[in-house]
Amino acid sequence: MHSYHGHDERRVPPLILGHEAVGEVQTGRLKGRRVVLNPLMTCGICDHCQGGRSNLCAKRELIGMRLAGAFAQFITIPERNLLDMPQDMDPVIASLTEPAATSLHAIYLAERVLHRPLSECRALVLGGGSIGAFAGLMLKNKGCHDIYLGDTNPLRRQTVERLGCCRVYDPLGDDQPDDNSFDLVIDAVGSGRTRAASCRHVRAGGVISHVGLQDNQPGLDTRRMTLEEITFLGNYTYSAVDLRAAIRALYKGALGSLDWVETRLLSEGAAAFRDIHEGKAAAPKIVLKP
Amino acid sequence: MHSYHGHDERRVPPLILGHEAVGEVQTGRLKGRRVVLNPLMTCGICDHCQGGRSNLCAKRELIGMRLAGAFAQFITIPERNLLDMPQDMDPVIASLTEPAATSLHAIYLAERVLHRPLSECRALVLGGGSIGAFAGLMLKNKGCHDIYLGDTNPLRRQTVERLGCCRVYDPLGDDQPDDNSFDLVIDAVGSGRTRAASCRHVRAGGVISHVGLQDNQPGLDTRRMTLEEITFLGNYTYSAVDLRAAIRALYKGALGSLDWVETRLLSEGAAAFRDIHEGKAAAPKIVLKP
Repeated sequence: MHSYHGHDERRVPPLILGHEAVGEVQTGRLKGRRVVLNPLMTCGICDHCQGGRSNLCAKRELIGMRLAGAFAQFITIPERNLLDMPQDMDPVIASLTEPAATSLHAIYLAERVLHRPLSECRALVLGGGSIGAFAGLMLKNKGCHDIYLGDTNPLRRQTVERLGCCRVYDPLGDDQPDDNSFDLVIDAVGSGRTRAASCRHVRAGGVISHVGLQDNQPGLDTRRMTLEEITFLGNYTYSAVDLRAAIRALYKGALGSLDWVETRLLSEGAAAFRDIHEGKAAAPKIVLKP
Repeated sequence: MHSYHGHDERRVPPLILGHEAVGEVQTGRLKGRRVVLNPLMTCGICDHCQGGRSNLCAKRELIGMRLAGAFAQFITIPERNLLDMPQDMDPVIASLTEPAATSLHAIYLAERVLHRPLSECRALVLGGGSIGAFAGLMLKNKGCHDIYLGDTNPLRRQTVERLGCCRVYDPLGDDQPDDNSFDLVIDAVGSGRTRAASCRHVRAGGVISHVGLQDNQPGLDTRRMTLEEITFLGNYTYSAVDLRAAIRALYKGALGSLDWVETRLLSEGAAAFRDIHEGKAAAPKIVLKP
């Protein structure tokens, strides 16, 4: 949606979008096999790539960014970007691998620095889009039992309520969770306002996991972050390890029924983007089928 | 200096300052023994206190903040705030425990999240006051071999040059270290400008350790921090463990000669504050003796 709104300077029109995809291999060793795409192409040989952080490779390229994306009929991508998936897995579910892996990666980085395990933590997710919804589901699946999720869109709130993983609230309403009360805040919006809310809600010694890229406005309260030793973690995408972990979680049904995902025809894709833009789409994710 | 300038809303005049001190115990079990003060009083029983992070205790009190500080003739403090020190240790050196522990604590938190050991890291320190100078010396003592330190005060730069632990530069001059080139940036100033510089200089996947409290202006580039997975760590003071580790390092001479510390009479304290304010004091730290 960020690029649909023309707010992403990295994506210059005309451009075929799409970086969350399942497809059938057309040529080579894996011909005929259904695979999930790792849309992030990296050099494979730098310290980041070989140190488990390929997402930070200086030569990284995300399809649908500068190069054409997965809404094309065919796509060319290195063989190492094809991720194996169970052939009996629903391709609609498998196509959710990318956003699920983004959430999983953000939680993994937070787990490395939290002082207590997630099962003892109180967590807040800001934003009920697909990254936020998957973050809520992943947190629950990892044993976190006290999860809040805030979204200003009433349709989104309804859908997220149905997931059954978190208490849902309106960040513009009267019924707010307490300030200074969350060990972990995942900001899946990434605006000045959500960063300010993150700084208010996080507990002394807690962690803000920052995933969204809505704007670069001020919002962080660096004075409080210093006096209360708050950690801020920037998050970008995932590694192949995160993507494979997401495929396994989705295949096992670890994230519940996923019936909140909507499916439409690729030929009706433009209308889907418009509905999301106008706040008419309740589903945090719409999968387009050819 | 922050309180001298009236910029610290937590310190309301009239107030006796002073929270970095060595003294002789007047009463009780340790009567007659020379000790270092842990100036941070905490409840001792909350999760933070009992989980190794007493510096985050909600009931914490720093002497010289709301209660009278160590520039008084006598001071009352709980016995658990008295830290043992070798009785043959120079009290001037021992009085540096507090700033040394602040630097040590910041580096310890950074070491927990850096992806490679300090000995392989390139580090930048912003600000050549006592926290910055001790950070440079501590980093060197921990095997870090590629350290830069920036300070806008030419007298401070001269003094820090003599420490022999880092390359010193003027952040307002032409000869700047490269952008996107440091695994660790320690911001011992804490202003909007130094936060902006931290975000420029830190490398993808790197860590900004934020210790200073100069202002709460915007400066962080949250977009870059997100896209490049930069970690921001707030730091506040130290635990008793950090203080004891600092006493050991200072006693062993692990931080070099420390002849850069200036000593003046307590009765001339006001002039010392004024000299620092006017940029006339070359020493990052002036110790006042009764």
